[in-house]
This record gives sequence, structure tokens and C-alpha cells, in this order.
Amino acid sequence: MERDAAYFEFLCRMGDNALVLGHRVSEWCGMGPVLEEDIALANIALDLIGQTQMWLGLAGEVEGKGRSADDLAMLRDVWDFRNLLLVEQPNGDFGQTMMRQFLFDAWHLAMLRGLEQSSEPRVAEIAAKAVKEITYHVERSADTVIGLGDGTTESHARMQNALDLLWPYVGEMFAADAVDEMMAAEGIAPDLAALRQGYDGEVARVMKAATLSIPESGFAHKGGKSGFQHSEHLGHMLTQMQWLQRAYPGAAW
Amino acid sequence: MERDAAYFEFLCRMGDNALVLGHRVSEWCGMGPVLEEDIALANIALDLIGQTQMWLGLAGEVEGKGRSADDLAMLRDVWDFRNLLLVEQPNGDFGQTMMRQFLFDAWHLAMLRGLEQSSEPRVAEIAAKAVKEITYHVERSADTVIGLGDGTTESHARMQNALDLLWPYVGEMFAADAVDEMMAAEGIAPDLAALRQGYDGEVARVMKAATLSIPESGFAHKGGKSGFQHSEHLGHMLTQMQWLQRAYPGAAW
Repeated sequence: MERDAAYFEFLCRMGDNALVLGHRVSEWCGMGPVLEEDIALANIALDLIGQTQMWLGLAGEVEGKGRSADDLAMLRDVWDFRNLLLVEQPNGDFGQTMMRQFLFDAWHLAMLRGLEQSSEPRVAEIAAKAVKEITYHVERSADTVIGLGDGTTESHARMQNALDLLWPYVGEMFAADAVDEMMAAEGIAPDLAALRQGYDGEVARVMKAATLSIPESGFAHKGGKSGFQHSEHLGHMLTQMQWLQRAYPGAAW
Repeated sequence: MERDAAYFEFLCRMGDNALVLGHRVSEWCGMGPVLEEDIALANIALDLIGQTQMWLGLAGEVEGKGRSADDLAMLRDVWDFRNLLLVEQPNGDFGQTMMRQFLFDAWHLAMLRGLEQSSEPRVAEIAAKAVKEITYHVERSADTVIGLGDGTTESHARMQNALDLLWPYVGEMFAADAVDEMMAAEGIAPDLAALRQGYDGEVARVMKAATLSIPESGFAHKGGKSGFQHSEHLGHMLTQMQWLQRAYPGAAW
């Protein structure tokens, strides 16, 4: 695989993770269980959409075909999205949303810390900005997972269900393919496998405090970041996210 | 209101009811609780989409602007849809879907029987075709409501919840506005208020057999058939239904 093609793919992965999770979290706007959580979720969504603009903006430059971040976000079809399967999963209840958030945030922060050392200055620059926001996200999602896991019988059961449901989507974050290998070889991104130990330690610490049991199965769904096999949820989400640009091409304000 | 404008509105209402409910029911395809129900639901959806083609095809002719049934279905925005709020409500569980179906079918059949006597021969012709299909739909949905309502403790509770949830959407079917009044005055469609007694009798019969209690409140949501105030569910549904024509304008096969 050619370096720049792999680099473009990698930037789309970073951008699409932020975009898809940002849109999912924005679906909570006006629906949060309490006002403070509602506003917090909206802010998390905004952080992620802001990061999307940086990653996809750079992706468009690297591609060199004149596509803007908006073009990449609003005019690609589902099979061209490169996000992890984890972030496209439906919100479920508030606890499920926060479990998805923590499982992603913990990986995201480790990834961004690695990217701060990137051989590509633009990547290091974006990562340095994002790491400040994500440090806060993971503190918040970890605290919420602990509070609800170690909460009432009802909240504990819901959080255990959420963990059981989402755990099979964790493995994809660490499974390197040709793109990831080239990024690591070029010093653009960290070696994914090397992030796993720290992640497992952090997840174990939080789940213990949350009195939740991590499933033993190592089974992992895949097909998100390669684009080969997204779940049906992503296509439905994109029809809603992209509706305006599809119905009114070129609309701007 | 001018007669032809009202006639076009009326045809859109009939077509949009069939289209939106048909799409909702089609969402069950491959998801039904047992194979026979899955196939039955797919057939009901097909009947409704077939009726949509007839109603919206005639609507396009009456409008005289060269819009086909496909154009009206796939290229109008949510604020131009004229379906009842009842049919755009989400599927919920199987019981909720069947409750929505029965509450609509019972009205639909009475409406179509009235339309068989329409002063407009084309309307009478479409109604005569549709009435055969809907006669079967209402037999089936009534039987299912009875079977699940007078079933287990769990199924009874779910059906009562479904009835409580959907009952406030019944009133809109009988609330005549200027369009309905002109249609009745022209002999094109029956007087809506005159259909209510028969409907109430049929619903009472089925709910008694189903051991379900009809809510006492007469509160009725409105804003669907006028297009003024659809629920948020319709817009989301349309983004999925219309995606292909929006993303690939003019696509055909």
C-alpha cells in the first residue's frame, strides 16, 4: 500500500471515529436524564465534531482532490466510512451511552498521547489539542461508569448489560491491519498492540471500582475501520446526519 | 379553498397514510417474531405501497405539474407529508405494531367503503381495489390484538400499554378540516364524523374480546394530515426511505 493512501485512510479513521461518536452523542441533546448531563453530552459532542474538522480537513489535503472536511463528512456513503464499530452502536439507555463512551475514551486518550509524538507535525498538533479535551472526557465517563455500576441494583444490572453488549467491540481498536502497520512503521501513529496493556489496566481499574465483571470472551467484531462490514446502524444514522446536504446540495449559511 | 387544490390534498392524505404505514411495516422485514408473521407483515407493507402508487399517481395527475407517484413519495420534505400522526409512530414491539395496525385498519376500511361511493370514478375504482386487501388486514390485526390482549399476563400488559400510547392518535382520523369538508360536500369522500360511530363499535367489540380497556380521555393529537406538526419520527423515517433518491438523484433500474 502506498504511504499517502494509507495516511489518508488513517486520517479518515480518526476523523470518522470522532464524527460518528459525536453525532451519536448529539442525539442526546434535549433528552438527557438531568440538565447537567444533557449539557455535558452536548459539549462532548461539540468537542468531537471540532476534532472531526481537523482530522478530515487534513485528510482532504493529503488526498489532494479538493474535498473539504464537510465534503468528506456529508457526501460519502456508508461503505466509505472508516470508524470503529464501537462508536456507531446505538445509544441505548444513558448507562449504555456512558459505557460506550468510557470504552472509547480510554483507547482514544492512549492513541492521542501516542500521536502527540507523531513524525507528522500536523498530526502531532491536532493530537495535542484533542488530548486536553479527551483527558476530561475519560475522567467523566469513568466516574459515571463507576457511579452507576456501584449504584443501585437496577443501575448495576444495566451497566453490566452494557459492558456485556459492548465488550465484543473493544478488540477492533487494537487489531492492526496494513494501514496501521504502515503508520507505525512511518512513525506517524503508535503501534496499536502496544496500547493494549495500558488500556486493559485502566479498564480493569474502573470496572473493579464499578463492581462490574469484564467478560472473559476475547471475541471481537471487525469490519468498521476497514469499511468492509459496518453494522446496519451506521447507514441509518448517516441518512439522518447527511439529509440536508443530500436534499439541498451545496446548502450553506 | 379551491376544489382541485383540496382534491390534491385529499389524495396525498390517502397516499401518504399508505406510504408511511407501509414503510413502517416494512421495517419488520426479517425481524418478525416468527416466520409467518414476518412474511405476513411484508405482504401488508406491499399492499400499502401498491395503494400508495395509485393514490399518489392520481394526485400527480390532478396537480398537473408532471410529478409522478415516485416524485411525490421520494422528493417531498417532511412538512409536505399529509399522513395521520398515528401511522408515523414507531413500531415499538410486535404488539404495539399490531395495535397501531388495527386502530388504523378499522378506520381505513370504513373510509374506503365510503370512497367506493365517490362521485369521482377514479377514486371509487382505487377504493374498490384497496377494500379487498384492507378487509383482510383488519381481520388479521383484530385477531392478533385479541389473541395478545387475552393472552399471557405479559402480552396483556404490553397490549394495554400500546392502546394507552396510541389512543390519543385516534381522534385525528375523524377531525374534519376544510379539505375534508369540501371533499364531503363534493361527494368525493364520506363525512368523517359519520364514520365514528361504526368505528367506535368495532373497536369496543375487539377490545372487549381482548380484555383491554379503552382510555377514557378524548384528547387527540393533531397536525399530521395538515402537515403542520408531524412528530420527529417522520423526518427520521423519511431520511432513510428517501436516501437513495437523495444521494443518487434520478437513479432507476
